[in-house]
Amino acid sequence: MNLLYFSMISGFLALIVVIFLVKGILKKDTGNEKMIEISGYIEEGAMAFLKKEYSYLVVFIIVIALAIIMFLNFKTAVAFVVGALFSIVAGYIGMRIAVKSNVRTTEAAKHGIREALAVAFSGGTVMGLCVVGLGIIGLGFFSIIFDLNAEYITGFGLGASSIALFARVGGGIYTKAADVGADLVGKVEAGIPEDDPRNPAVIADNVGDNVGDVAGMGADLFESYVGSIISAITLGSVLVGEWGINIVIFPLVLSSIGILASLIGIIFVKAYKGDNPQKALNLGSTISGVIVLVVGFIVCNMLMGSYELFLPVIAGLIVGLIIGKVTEYYTSADYKPVKFIANESKTGPATNIIAGLSVGMKSTVIPILLIVIGIIISFFAIGGGSNTSLGLYGIALSAVGMLSTTAITIAVDAYGPISDNAGGIAEMCELDKNIREITDKLDSVGNTTAAIGKGFAIGSAALTALALFASYSQTVNLQTINLLDPLTLVGVLIGGMLPFLFAALTMQSVGKAATEMVEEVRRQFREKEGILKGTEKPDYSKCVEISTHAALKEMILPGILAIAVPLIVGMLLGTEALGGLIGGGVVTGVMLAIMMSNSGGAWDNAKKYIETGINGGKGSVAHKAGVVGDTVGDPFKDTSGPSMNILIKLMTIVSVVFAPVIAKYGGVLIQYLIK
Amino acid sequence: MNLLYFSMISGFLALIVVIFLVKGILKKDTGNEKMIEISGYIEEGAMAFLKKEYSYLVVFIIVIALAIIMFLNFKTAVAFVVGALFSIVAGYIGMRIAVKSNVRTTEAAKHGIREALAVAFSGGTVMGLCVVGLGIIGLGFFSIIFDLNAEYITGFGLGASSIALFARVGGGIYTKAADVGADLVGKVEAGIPEDDPRNPAVIADNVGDNVGDVAGMGADLFESYVGSIISAITLGSVLVGEWGINIVIFPLVLSSIGILASLIGIIFVKAYKGDNPQKALNLGSTISGVIVLVVGFIVCNMLMGSYELFLPVIAGLIVGLIIGKVTEYYTSADYKPVKFIANESKTGPATNIIAGLSVGMKSTVIPILLIVIGIIISFFAIGGGSNTSLGLYGIALSAVGMLSTTAITIAVDAYGPISDNAGGIAEMCELDKNIREITDKLDSVGNTTAAIGKGFAIGSAALTALALFASYSQTVNLQTINLLDPLTLVGVLIGGMLPFLFAALTMQSVGKAATEMVEEVRRQFREKEGILKGTEKPDYSKCVEISTHAALKEMILPGILAIAVPLIVGMLLGTEALGGLIGGGVVTGVMLAIMMSNSGGAWDNAKKYIETGINGGKGSVAHKAGVVGDTVGDPFKDTSGPSMNILIKLMTIVSVVFAPVIAKYGGVLIQYLIK
Repeated sequence: MNLLYFSMISGFLALIVVIFLVKGILKKDTGNEKMIEISGYIEEGAMAFLKKEYSYLVVFIIVIALAIIMFLNFKTAVAFVVGALFSIVAGYIGMRIAVKSNVRTTEAAKHGIREALAVAFSGGTVMGLCVVGLGIIGLGFFSIIFDLNAEYITGFGLGASSIALFARVGGGIYTKAADVGADLVGKVEAGIPEDDPRNPAVIADNVGDNVGDVAGMGADLFESYVGSIISAITLGSVLVGEWGINIVIFPLVLSSIGILASLIGIIFVKAYKGDNPQKALNLGSTISGVIVLVVGFIVCNMLMGSYELFLPVIAGLIVGLIIGKVTEYYTSADYKPVKFIANESKTGPATNIIAGLSVGMKSTVIPILLIVIGIIISFFAIGGGSNTSLGLYGIALSAVGMLSTTAITIAVDAYGPISDNAGGIAEMCELDKNIREITDKLDSVGNTTAAIGKGFAIGSAALTALALFASYSQTVNLQTINLLDPLTLVGVLIGGMLPFLFAALTMQSVGKAATEMVEEVRRQFREKEGILKGTEKPDYSKCVEISTHAALKEMILPGILAIAVPLIVGMLLGTEALGGLIGGGVVTGVMLAIMMSNSGGAWDNAKKYIETGINGGKGSVAHKAGVVGDTVGDPFKDTSGPSMNILIKLMTIVSVVFAPVIAKYGGVLIQYLIK
Repeated sequence: MNLLYFSMISGFLALIVVIFLVKGILKKDTGNEKMIEISGYIEEGAMAFLKKEYSYLVVFIIVIALAIIMFLNFKTAVAFVVGALFSIVAGYIGMRIAVKSNVRTTEAAKHGIREALAVAFSGGTVMGLCVVGLGIIGLGFFSIIFDLNAEYITGFGLGASSIALFARVGGGIYTKAADVGADLVGKVEAGIPEDDPRNPAVIADNVGDNVGDVAGMGADLFESYVGSIISAITLGSVLVGEWGINIVIFPLVLSSIGILASLIGIIFVKAYKGDNPQKALNLGSTISGVIVLVVGFIVCNMLMGSYELFLPVIAGLIVGLIIGKVTEYYTSADYKPVKFIANESKTGPATNIIAGLSVGMKSTVIPILLIVIGIIISFFAIGGGSNTSLGLYGIALSAVGMLSTTAITIAVDAYGPISDNAGGIAEMCELDKNIREITDKLDSVGNTTAAIGKGFAIGSAALTALALFASYSQTVNLQTINLLDPLTLVGVLIGGMLPFLFAALTMQSVGKAATEMVEEVRRQFREKEGILKGTEKPDYSKCVEISTHAALKEMILPGILAIAVPLIVGMLLGTEALGGLIGGGVVTGVMLAIMMSNSGGAWDNAKKYIETGINGGKGSVAHKAGVVGDTVGDPFKDTSGPSMNILIKLMTIVSVVFAPVIAKYGGVLIQYLIK
């Protein structure tokens, strides 16, 4: 049990580093008055959104907590509330620092790319360390006070999941409503460039980057991180008799090693002296991964006396890495798929769309095969062929392994939107061109790391959901979920349909919100003629308000669906049907997540590729088609696609938490039908 | 067993009616010389495609037949070959008559809408009766000579499925390559109207309607029809001890009743004296349905002494009907979804695409819930709660019930493309305007019936595949396919991915072929300046050749995938993984089928709706956006979407047929891993 304290210490260590990082960032120069003003708007907008969002979430947390107390027990409810609060705190700190880092990155860029990278990366690191620090502290704490009883600890995961849902969906709608709205009127109708301060939606757009790509992504990975560890604890707890208590503690220890490894990786990034940000980030990630492999292996042998137990960890780490690389292949202009889309754009938007969709669909193949290989290795390498429980534990362990270096992964990922914002501020403040060039370089590296991060988030979500699925069956004591049972089939069909419904709802939400934004921007241009001339200031706050309002309103229905449908199916049709629902949901959810993210990313880069002069360059037929694809891709890659990750994890963890109730009272319709 | 002869007789009766219908059609006037010439081109093109396709299929049939002989037995191989040949013959006759009916419909339109309807409907009826006639004769014959041994009879289903795959995929690629190619250059670039004889791709486009919508659709439903009956026979055969042999014969008897009911319905359509084709078709379909319900109920009681056994049949019929109506709701301009897309078109193609995709995704919800309700009723009403085998038989029976009136369903459906062709001929021969008006009216009714037919095809494919899935488990003697087993999960993931890959491949095929077509049409316009002036004849045959060649070349890879992947997974990972693969494939396949078909239909009608003057009418921003959506929707609704039906059925029946081999030798990789 001392090891639990060790893991908590690593969490506190991460938070201490956060304090130093924050102090360092705040010490940096914030530039001239204009920069302070503009970045002030962004910070204000971002914080306003978070505060509003939290006021909704508080209601939600109270309702669910009461439901848990009523139907389950008080301990789970406490863990739930703390899980939700920790996710909120991590998001709050991460975003608060992100919106302070952006302008400081712009200012640092005056001294060169290395200095700018240092600030932006520090900002991202804060988010990354908060996620893992709070995650492991919470898990360690509840493991100690609940004596490693997984039944209560899952509440922590449910809290994390719930917040992730709203953060991802709300944030995704926010960012794309602003982005699409700003582009449609600004770039297309008024003909002003991106990030032009005359565009009333420009601040909302920049706020959106933080809300969606920093806070949303952080909450997503917080959920995966916590969920994978919880599933490993749950699945490990049946093996305690055979293996000793260490099998339950090992996942936590492994995660602690991951935190320390990430910290070392982060030091390497910050100590990097060259001019190539991509190299610096790769170096840090690689070092972290290698440390986890080496130290993890040694500790695994010491703790468990078995090197086989470490094979799933290796599999998880490698599969996560390759999925990221595959994502890059499908979404980077350096490779065939994006070039194919750019070529198909020559015959107009229709062929561009068909090409983008088919690229996204095709891009599901390799990640799925990788996940499949990961599952097989994790299950069988550890001896699942003769001991199923052990094999399932292996799958959970591979998820934990994949996510062990989450801290640096988030740092690398969140540095992107900070650089993006920094560029926006440079543009809006009309700073020197070479500053924009530096931020553009950082931003373009950020696009690659974001693509890799997205693939990683999907892969980890899939593995986490599958591991939680196994936990579910253990909690309701199901030995089999029989696909031949029509109720399971029914569950699979309903579960398979949910991600489609979810994608439809979130896409329509973006559409509706963007239309509102378009109308507001048009109105401002119409009523205040000075805006476009640059003599009058646009009303930024109105656009921020629209995005905020739309995001919060539109996140409710999908949110309720994700939580209510599993419970309804479980209560009406029983535990096997609910198991089927999870299975079906995970399958189509993962497919849509990969397809939508990659289609979106590929469209985006195809447009950018055409803008470099390919197939006629800017203004050509191909370019116009590319813009259409990019616009369709926006909600694909930043709203609906990433929401799938949360949907599948949330559906699963809701089922795990409420499993005891469903096992006891579920299946009322079926009992009636059988009579 | 005498009842088997009765069912065969109903099949022969259907074929006899075909002979009379054909004679009647051929006696009709073919119009003036120009009409004969133009329709001659279409007929020539269609027959050329079929012949080329068959030359490929012969090779395929021989290879598979040899494989069956080698790994299974001779009897299954015979049934396979006959199943394939019967599907080919049904397609051949149906299409041959369809391309003879089109010009005669045009000519008949000179005498009024009633006369035109009579000819077009007769043409469609030939296809419908050939499908059910040959289907039931084949099944009856093999049931008799193989003594109702399902193991061999499934070969007949595999034959039907294989041909369906190539007919649907090949036909789908053919028709959309021609359509998209003709539109992109003709309508968009050269500004000539649809069906203009100056467009070199116009004949290929008209041929495509027959190849895709008549032959492809016929083969699809032939497969469902045969497959559902086979699954009922397979699942019934384990109940013989309890219920007597009639439980195996009942599905065939029910189908015979359906044929007779369809014949009566067809008589009502032909005897209809009013001017509203929609009413005539509805009348016929309703009468057929009611007859099946009444007579079927009586026969069920007589034969089985149980009215519960009839409940699944009722459920199947009603679910099929409602799914059709729901499809109409999502794809007709009379309702909200299409209007929503038309409105979103005002802000350009991107919002049109997002709206169309979200409508398609949302449209999965109700059909899935209907299928789910159908499954629950069919399973539990019949007593599946206490007797699983009986419940599974109920699911198969509901598929048989849904498909019992296939004859008139196909007739109503195939009349559409014939009318469409008739309109095209009227246009190309520059006939009187009121003739085109009549064919347009028939065509527009045809669009509705086609939408309903598509929904029906998907619903029946889903139920058939699920029933076959149950047969599979019985054949390999699996009591459970455990979703908690990682191998099953692996199968589910791979199966779930296949439809995405399949959709990507077929969409890319259409894109490639359409690009070739565009280049050819452009070339002809460039090299022969007289074409656009109307002084020179375009080279139709070159375009026909391109479509033919592309369709055949591009159908090979998806075809092989659909057959090979299940076998590979079964051999490597064993029967449970293969079961998972089927389950996963059915789920995502059904979702994509519904989504793609409905998105495509909705885009099509949104464009037409805008063309009536809404949101600016022709030439407006909204209209241009509508055209983009329509073009994206073309491969959605006519190639990739319908291909899903076949994919899921084929994967399943391949597994059923090769189940004995897989049960014996499968799972080699896993055996190795466990060691």
